[in-house]
Amino acid sequence: MITSPTLVLDRNKALENIKKMSSKVSKLGLKFRPHFKTHQSLEIGNWFKEFPIDGITVSSLKMAKYFASDGWESITVAFPFNILDIKEINALASKIDLRILVVDSESAIELDKNLTSDVSVYIEIDPNYGRSGIHLNDTEQIGNLILAVNNSEKLTLHGFYSHAGHSYKCRSSNDIARFSKPIIDSLSQIKNKYDLPICFGDTPSCSVLKNFGAIDELSPGNFVFYDWIQTQIGSCDPKDIAIAMKCPVVAKYPSRNELLIHGGAVHFSKDHDLLESGEPYFGQVVPTLNKGWGKPIEECYLKTVSQEHGIVKCSDEFFSDTEPGDLITILPIHSCLTADLMGTYLTTDDERISHLSEKRI
Amino acid sequence: MITSPTLVLDRNKALENIKKMSSKVSKLGLKFRPHFKTHQSLEIGNWFKEFPIDGITVSSLKMAKYFASDGWESITVAFPFNILDIKEINALASKIDLRILVVDSESAIELDKNLTSDVSVYIEIDPNYGRSGIHLNDTEQIGNLILAVNNSEKLTLHGFYSHAGHSYKCRSSNDIARFSKPIIDSLSQIKNKYDLPICFGDTPSCSVLKNFGAIDELSPGNFVFYDWIQTQIGSCDPKDIAIAMKCPVVAKYPSRNELLIHGGAVHFSKDHDLLESGEPYFGQVVPTLNKGWGKPIEECYLKTVSQEHGIVKCSDEFFSDTEPGDLITILPIHSCLTADLMGTYLTTDDERISHLSEKRI
Repeated sequence: MITSPTLVLDRNKALENIKKMSSKVSKLGLKFRPHFKTHQSLEIGNWFKEFPIDGITVSSLKMAKYFASDGWESITVAFPFNILDIKEINALASKIDLRILVVDSESAIELDKNLTSDVSVYIEIDPNYGRSGIHLNDTEQIGNLILAVNNSEKLTLHGFYSHAGHSYKCRSSNDIARFSKPIIDSLSQIKNKYDLPICFGDTPSCSVLKNFGAIDELSPGNFVFYDWIQTQIGSCDPKDIAIAMKCPVVAKYPSRNELLIHGGAVHFSKDHDLLESGEPYFGQVVPTLNKGWGKPIEECYLKTVSQEHGIVKCSDEFFSDTEPGDLITILPIHSCLTADLMGTYLTTDDERISHLSEKRI
Repeated sequence: MITSPTLVLDRNKALENIKKMSSKVSKLGLKFRPHFKTHQSLEIGNWFKEFPIDGITVSSLKMAKYFASDGWESITVAFPFNILDIKEINALASKIDLRILVVDSESAIELDKNLTSDVSVYIEIDPNYGRSGIHLNDTEQIGNLILAVNNSEKLTLHGFYSHAGHSYKCRSSNDIARFSKPIIDSLSQIKNKYDLPICFGDTPSCSVLKNFGAIDELSPGNFVFYDWIQTQIGSCDPKDIAIAMKCPVVAKYPSRNELLIHGGAVHFSKDHDLLESGEPYFGQVVPTLNKGWGKPIEECYLKTVSQEHGIVKCSDEFFSDTEPGDLITILPIHSCLTADLMGTYLTTDDERISHLSEKRI
């Protein structure tokens, strides 16, 4: 019996999301290297093995070690090379096809100097997101880095890696298409200029686009679960969301049509979307069903979160239908952070599924 | 050697914060029931044992069980009674002086009906924060709840509990004083009317106020570490902050004076303060010292966080002095959430200290 905030996983929805993305990538004739940072789960990783996969993508060496321990043999760490990790990189590179991102000549030379095994690298290209990599217009630096990698002893230049995380600012599938086109065009030019594979992968673009230009590999991650913000971005329908939080209702406040729930920032994270008023909110309420949940209930959302408390704003009907002791179900804004905080999943069939950051208690 | 994001704890600063708050509470002749939700650590809990303490406060039954397992015998769960927790409550109430918050007559009656041991309760009063409890002006409901508790078999009415979490909107110590006065006055009236103890405790008010009216018990929590937002609220000086994140620098971006670090939302949380421009930021950079850290460096802050990546905006000088492979130190915005995410502390003397949510890996 659920008595405290619990992350529930609808296995069929996740399997359907995996199948849909995998078959899209296959039909396009591209390679699929799904990002595992969203689920961070060995069991869920295994669900991907039914589908054609070139390898997997993770966002830290810790995650790479975790999945390598379960038999994954080709892993991209989609995070720029950190010289402080060199010991772990050497240990892992001697066992698997480890692929690392490099973002400047100096660190590529440093990596080469300290490696004890050969390693494949991707040059990270910043598609104007402003987070990481060489800006896609900076042909001089791209050229220098290619030279540095080609002159190295232990690095093999696999290709380019690019993540357009600013696609999260889109608010419709048309937005996503308009946003992605110039990026895909620029990346395709880079591909054609250097004749090297390009790996690309944000969930909005990978969910919506039909044409990926000259791109060779896709590595989206969030699509395995999706979440409420992805419905707002235009990547998916609410029915595609594969995880939800079940939280106990603890008190009712009739004067403000609000419920107090056990479920706060240590469960949901503080990631938020904005209401039309400009105020933040932290999740979308759906009806609690015996196995799973129903469609979003209008005007019912997680209004505030503090450490363990959450306040849910309700429609009149939902408020009058809900009592302390009930469990209510809330679609999280950002599934990656919610799953990382919760550290474990309970499937709608009552099976426990583990997560890398599983809590001791 | 630190190679990945690490939460560093300056034990002397934390001990000094504990000593200062404890001696303030003692001098005022009040009872001290510090909130342990910030540190969630058995070892740090033990540091409090040198000082006069009436009991401790936690925000979940899980935390209460954790500290009870280490010999704490009087624990307030500062969260309204959740009927789904009744089995755990009965188990714990048979062993320790467990105190629970009640917020309405129905749930008090429900609690009484299902208890197998006697339990002390606090009636939670909402000091206009809008989160939880009976509003301080709602004398009718307060009266009804007192009656329900007094008519019960197993509940002993200990007193009132009130948390003014909206003090976090203050931006100077004068602000905090002005904000707190009417709340303390109202709570004092309630105290005088019903002649029952009142427990009160947000870190800003407890750090700044000199006069607590008729209040009997204080239960602040964040003060053990403080954090960057508390310096902005007016509760403390930057030198009082007892925890900081050490993060590897991975890349430099000269065109935008920014560093890429390993350190993101799964380490810091997404809690933020606002720059003058209205843009959010996620931490304040300080110089990295061999043991600990120095004073805040102007114009250097954690500008954005995604799952594992952080972008640090730098002054010209800090940018030119910092290289990939360096560790930089960042004061977190909100220490409670950062500690909960990190799940372990490394003291400036290189000792590992545990946290309830310690990660498996």
